[in-house]
Amino acid sequence: MSLKALREEVLEANLELVRRGLVLFTFGNASGCDRARERIAIKPSGVPYDRLTPADLVITDLDGNIVDGKLRPSSDLPTHVALYRAFDGIGGVVHTHSRYATAWAQSGLDIPCFGTTHADYFRGSIPSTRVMRPNEIESKYEWNTGTVIAERFENLDPLAMPAVLVSGHAPFCWGASVTEAAHNAAILEELAHMAYLTVTIRADAAAISEALRDKHFLRKHGPGAYYGQPADESELDRG
Amino acid sequence: MSLKALREEVLEANLELVRRGLVLFTFGNASGCDRARERIAIKPSGVPYDRLTPADLVITDLDGNIVDGKLRPSSDLPTHVALYRAFDGIGGVVHTHSRYATAWAQSGLDIPCFGTTHADYFRGSIPSTRVMRPNEIESKYEWNTGTVIAERFENLDPLAMPAVLVSGHAPFCWGASVTEAAHNAAILEELAHMAYLTVTIRADAAAISEALRDKHFLRKHGPGAYYGQPADESELDRG
Amino acid sequence: MSLKALREEVLEANLELVRRGLVLFTFGNASGCDRARERIAIKPSGVPYDRLTPADLVITDLDGNIVDGKLRPSSDLPTHVALYRAFDGIGGVVHTHSRYATAWAQSGLDIPCFGTTHADYFRGSIPSTRVMRPNEIESKYEWNTGTVIAERFENLDPLAMPAVLVSGHAPFCWGASVTEAAHNAAILEELAHMAYLTVTIRADAAAISEALRDKHFLRKHGPGAYYGQPADESELDRG
Amino acid sequence: MSLKALREEVLEANLELVRRGLVLFTFGNASGCDRARERIAIKPSGVPYDRLTPADLVITDLDGNIVDGKLRPSSDLPTHVALYRAFDGIGGVVHTHSRYATAWAQSGLDIPCFGTTHADYFRGSIPSTRVMRPNEIESKYEWNTGTVIAERFENLDPLAMPAVLVSGHAPFCWGASVTEAAHNAAILEELAHMAYLTVTIRADAAAISEALRDKHFLRKHGPGAYYGQPADESELDRG
Repeated sequence: MSLKALREEVLEANLELVRRGLVLFTFGNASGCDRARERIAIKPSGVPYDRLTPADLVITDLDGNIVDGKLRPSSDLPTHVALYRAFDGIGGVVHTHSRYATAWAQSGLDIPCFGTTHADYFRGSIPSTRVMRPNEIESKYEWNTGTVIAERFENLDPLAMPAVLVSGHAPFCWGASVTEAAHNAAILEELAHMAYLTVTIRADAAAISEALRDKHFLRKHGPGAYYGQPADESELDRG
Repeated sequence: MSLKALREEVLEANLELVRRGLVLFTFGNASGCDRARERIAIKPSGVPYDRLTPADLVITDLDGNIVDGKLRPSSDLPTHVALYRAFDGIGGVVHTHSRYATAWAQSGLDIPCFGTTHADYFRGSIPSTRVMRPNEIESKYEWNTGTVIAERFENLDPLAMPAVLVSGHAPFCWGASVTEAAHNAAILEELAHMAYLTVTIRADAAAISEALRDKHFLRKHGPGAYYGQPADESELDRG
Repeated sequence: MSLKALREEVLEANLELVRRGLVLFTFGNASGCDRARERIAIKPSGVPYDRLTPADLVITDLDGNIVDGKLRPSSDLPTHVALYRAFDGIGGVVHTHSRYATAWAQSGLDIPCFGTTHADYFRGSIPSTRVMRPNEIESKYEWNTGTVIAERFENLDPLAMPAVLVSGHAPFCWGASVTEAAHNAAILEELAHMAYLTVTIRADAAAISEALRDKHFLRKHGPGAYYGQPADESELDRG
Repeated sequence: MSLKALREEVLEANLELVRRGLVLFTFGNASGCDRARERIAIKPSGVPYDRLTPADLVITDLDGNIVDGKLRPSSDLPTHVALYRAFDGIGGVVHTHSRYATAWAQSGLDIPCFGTTHADYFRGSIPSTRVMRPNEIESKYEWNTGTVIAERFENLDPLAMPAVLVSGHAPFCWGASVTEAAHNAAILEELAHMAYLTVTIRADAAAISEALRDKHFLRKHGPGAYYGQPADESELDRG
């Protein structure tokens, strides 16, 4: 993939966040990473979405040093960098303040796996991080946000669990590409909404069994997958 | 009805699910059954709705064996087949992950008949299935989903109760035709939403009396119905 | 006002219910009453809104006997007739199954006057009827719905309280005209929504004081009103 | 800024309230204040938004005396005047009955600072006023609404807390300009929605730490701000 194609895919993912109703005003940002070229393309800070062009995206190296672009990158760039470093297999990161996922992040609770809609995409509860400490906030705050996320994933596979809730803040999502990361952000919001309804209908609602969870997750992911059309293995949706 | 007409009606029902906001991405599927011809027409798996044409639908026999179509059928086909076998009078099946009905399915609770909006379409609580067992999940999962639904209907009339909530999963709806099944899916979502609001306003809200429930159900169904225009007995709505 | 003008106003009010999102499919109906001519114009039963024309409306006398129209009137006609008889000053009646107002009706609770938005239109709690008895349901059900509403208003002024929640059913609204009745139906739904949020934030939320309630109600209604422009006393809104 | 420019900005802010879904019918009003010219421009009372032109706005002095305009000003004008007097640094005031903020006002509770979305705009809990007393309601009600707000801000900085919830009524917002006030009204509604979800997920949800709150507030406000593009210090959004 050329850098030009990466810029276009990152721009498109940012616009997808708007189309799916996941961002208000200029909240939210998406980046893509080309590991072979050691480049990250990320949304500039505070620029309205309807004016964004591929050329406005900021290009950095894998340490977050700007190598191309006239605008300041998103202030959350260091979090994106920390995630690309911590999670080898990912090629895109998306941050939103989407309503239901943010409410769960504000509650400090994990989102339980209440149903198969959830299990089709996330293999277990969607984790909340611990609360960040004052010293982590005072300096290198955005970088530390990434390390606190990585700490939470010590025993989790980021490809089977492509989202996190930063406590008191909002979600970060990721995927093999920025397109997939944006798709996961849309699915997360829907799951967060359904889980919200579930716990307010029934405070002691139970997570589904491991058997049902893994059946659904593996029906769509990995070598035994049998969902979608065989010619289109990358198919993200279901039916 | 010709097979061509069945294809068109099934396609239209799938699109109605999208228009009514009952599906996100490619979630959900609708099928129609022509019992005289022993044919089922069903949506292919994982194909975006806006690209679907009548020719993309997969045609199977009443055992679910493909007799026409180049694409894989929806992975939920065996559930549809099991429902057509279990419920003689039905000609259409719809599966969605619509938000409120899915939340009720995730709670594991039946939806009580809290009002006349509900009673106009469903004669009693909308039932939840029991939780599926590991062995039912591990093999023939989609078929077993159908048999667990049928088990729940042992003492229920599927034509007076054209929907079910599969615990930890989502709703299935049906009807005399796929058009009616899709209409029931839209009504179910509205009822599930109202019932959600009702139990969160008042946790001990009561179901309406049998007298009121049957008055409304029978005002619209069966020989004593007096709703709608006499020239249009198939009228689905009310006013 | 001519009968032609009444037909047009009633049609417009029915369409306003659709535009405001208060009806799903063909749920709901509006009627207007010309007391001088002793005529009621009401929506026909089960006809989709987008096909309605003024000529489709059914004209009845004040006993509900059809005097003009080829279609069956709304099955709720007897409730409308009962309300026109019970409440002298009203010229329009609207029935919807709007989501939040219906949920309150299903809960069996009155909607408390939690704020000035409510007090601008309704001088006190919006009342719920008692549950209807089996004998009231079995025969003359729609007429009895109206008499149970009238019973609930024994000590209430219908012009200061232009709405009711029929327990286990849904709201009826009214006003000096059908236009005003439809406006009240839209306001009711908004109030019901806000009241829903209020009680789920805080189960023991208190109604506002009588002083505040009457200040707002009388700022807009009656001889001391000072809201809106003096040239436009009929102004329904506020700002 | 000319008076003509003020009229246009105030009109635009009023229309922004409609576009953001913060007002129903003619509910709500916005005003702007030019302190150098000692003039306030405010929406007229009860005029539908889609007919408003700059010439319809009412111009008053800083005591609320009309100096130009044919229409009655918004009945809430005295509240606006009281706020411009109490809070030196503000140039715009917005009043809405937006759904979630109004529900919080009806609950009588402050909105806790549950997350960074909130802290980016409001440095702490969004305060509710005390309940107004009968004598404050009976005469000079709208003026007293303003003084009760000012009383609540005795130990608060109105520029770090540009919103209030009037108990049993609805929010007022403000800012350096009416554009900023309208933006704050939109953000407030979103925060109120997220806070609503947070407390209904978890009744004992905790506010974020002062360290995190101030980090986010000061990242966007004051001399140490590093959010947005340096050439565009007035940028209101984030990303």
